[in-house]
Amino acid sequence: MSSPYGLHRVVEPAGVLPQQAWRLSTETRSWPDEVLVDVELLNLDAASYRQLREQHGDPDSVRRAVVEIITERGKMHNPVTGSGGMLLGTVREVGPDSPLGLKPGDRVATLVSLTLTPLRIDDDLADWTGDSEQIPCRGTAVLFGRSIAAVLPDDLPDALALSVLDVCGAPALTDRVVRDAGTEPAVLVLGGGGKSGSLSLAAARRAGAGRLVALVPTQAEADAVQESGLADEVVLADARDPVAVAQAVGAQVDVTIVCVDVPGCEHGAVLATADGGTIVFFSMATSFSAAALGAEGLAADVKMLIGNGYVPGHATFALDLLRATPGVRELFERRERHTSTA
Amino acid sequence: MSSPYGLHRVVEPAGVLPQQAWRLSTETRSWPDEVLVDVELLNLDAASYRQLREQHGDPDSVRRAVVEIITERGKMHNPVTGSGGMLLGTVREVGPDSPLGLKPGDRVATLVSLTLTPLRIDDDLADWTGDSEQIPCRGTAVLFGRSIAAVLPDDLPDALALSVLDVCGAPALTDRVVRDAGTEPAVLVLGGGGKSGSLSLAAARRAGAGRLVALVPTQAEADAVQESGLADEVVLADARDPVAVAQAVGAQVDVTIVCVDVPGCEHGAVLATADGGTIVFFSMATSFSAAALGAEGLAADVKMLIGNGYVPGHATFALDLLRATPGVRELFERRERHTSTA
Repeated sequence: MSSPYGLHRVVEPAGVLPQQAWRLSTETRSWPDEVLVDVELLNLDAASYRQLREQHGDPDSVRRAVVEIITERGKMHNPVTGSGGMLLGTVREVGPDSPLGLKPGDRVATLVSLTLTPLRIDDDLADWTGDSEQIPCRGTAVLFGRSIAAVLPDDLPDALALSVLDVCGAPALTDRVVRDAGTEPAVLVLGGGGKSGSLSLAAARRAGAGRLVALVPTQAEADAVQESGLADEVVLADARDPVAVAQAVGAQVDVTIVCVDVPGCEHGAVLATADGGTIVFFSMATSFSAAALGAEGLAADVKMLIGNGYVPGHATFALDLLRATPGVRELFERRERHTSTA
Repeated sequence: MSSPYGLHRVVEPAGVLPQQAWRLSTETRSWPDEVLVDVELLNLDAASYRQLREQHGDPDSVRRAVVEIITERGKMHNPVTGSGGMLLGTVREVGPDSPLGLKPGDRVATLVSLTLTPLRIDDDLADWTGDSEQIPCRGTAVLFGRSIAAVLPDDLPDALALSVLDVCGAPALTDRVVRDAGTEPAVLVLGGGGKSGSLSLAAARRAGAGRLVALVPTQAEADAVQESGLADEVVLADARDPVAVAQAVGAQVDVTIVCVDVPGCEHGAVLATADGGTIVFFSMATSFSAAALGAEGLAADVKMLIGNGYVPGHATFALDLLRATPGVRELFERRERHTSTA
């Protein structure tokens, strides 16, 4: 029997989850709840691509290293960094029991990591020069019952849609948390000018936030967020400096959303949040122990959530938010122009 | 003006929180919202004591190193491990604006770290032989408006009370989460035989849990938890093996409490929890990114909480739970006899 988590595709070692497995089966005869995808493009995780470049040097050696990993492991799972990436493709075949709601011909992006996605390549990545993390590719990928894939919209450029899908968990969870926080709660977004930050501001507004504050690190970003109209107040501070954050924000807020991808923002978030309030950490740079011990050391009665990247309907929600909120799209496009990261 | 977070006691560098500071003021003339404590005993954090032993070797050198740290920094904050510990003492003086509810003569244990507690020693730790993490000490400590201290109960041995106070955030937060989870929610405690685990089982029962499952790693511990009567079901599995955890637990639960202090328990917790459910991570070995990416990779719509060690009233709540639940006390005392850790 097949497992919605893909346990049936694990070859070695037996009995672990696909992400923990060394090798997955890329058998292209599919199980009833699976979906097969004709792959067009692999997008390697930035950390993985950087490591491969450092280890292998010239682009062709990097290309051969990636081919070797995929062939050996049945997935693009960098054994050094432990990270993967995502892929773009077109649905070829949908099993009769698949719950994903996809149909043949749909253009999709996978929102689960390549580290758990069975992948077979048929072209030795011959069209890739090895000098970018975007890999043109012909091959087959497998989605499980619990995999997540988003149909790419017709009305948005692929690059913009992928940027949004990359962080789509943040606005969906922000929506839930703000709705649960009572009437017109005050909301603070640390890193309000970034991708997840600007979407979270828009989500908080739509969910009924009262006072809405964006904290950003530079005057240029403050100006951009101010122009976007996404926040009521834009304040300038280093999110890693708890006392500066608290002073910049002023009255404590009911909900704080942390979207700043640098370590050390936990204590500022705690100081800025009122007792009984909620903090959602979306940054992967968050330290579990700094958050737990920080709140305890400050005797702060705050609820702290680990930002789960999966909320049902998150992809549609985020794309709709982008379409409906010109300020969000402006910030995304400004970011593309400056080729900075979020 | 004094700050409830103790900013007014920070000497160097200026403008940071006491925990981040290199040096605190131990001036014994107190501010209106402070409490002064006559110190009896310092209890060093285990990691800090181990490091000091490794660096300094013989007990007398360790003693001198601790005296030097406290004298230089104005707090017992190990510069290598970054950790502190807690202290026991008797309240000497209570400022007129202190919100802590203490009175002179109260015997107290501090529940905030020594890394943020101003401390002056008057005896060069002369009564300490340097060969244990418990340090007899004469000196003065300062509590701020937001510090946390618990009055030691008359009816329990100090060692037992301190053991309970050390983990008292877990049962208090478990109580809240289980009450918020609807009618008779199914609850799983990973590490149900440990200190925080057994208190969390008792708290979950009192808060109205339905099916209550304890997961433990050994048969001996399973027998002990079974005898204690704290759980409806006791199951045996390695909490680091997600598939084994899911199989042992069977039907998914509504609330999972993670009290196992080893890395790698995030995915098992996710697999064992039903969509819409809640996971509370109390273990300091929790990896933020493993939890966030694990839930996303498994398309699990679960709420994940960072176990905040502070909940108002947590000390009284935990001590009452111990008094009212013979099974909890048995497990604590068994643990003392086996001198194992939780």
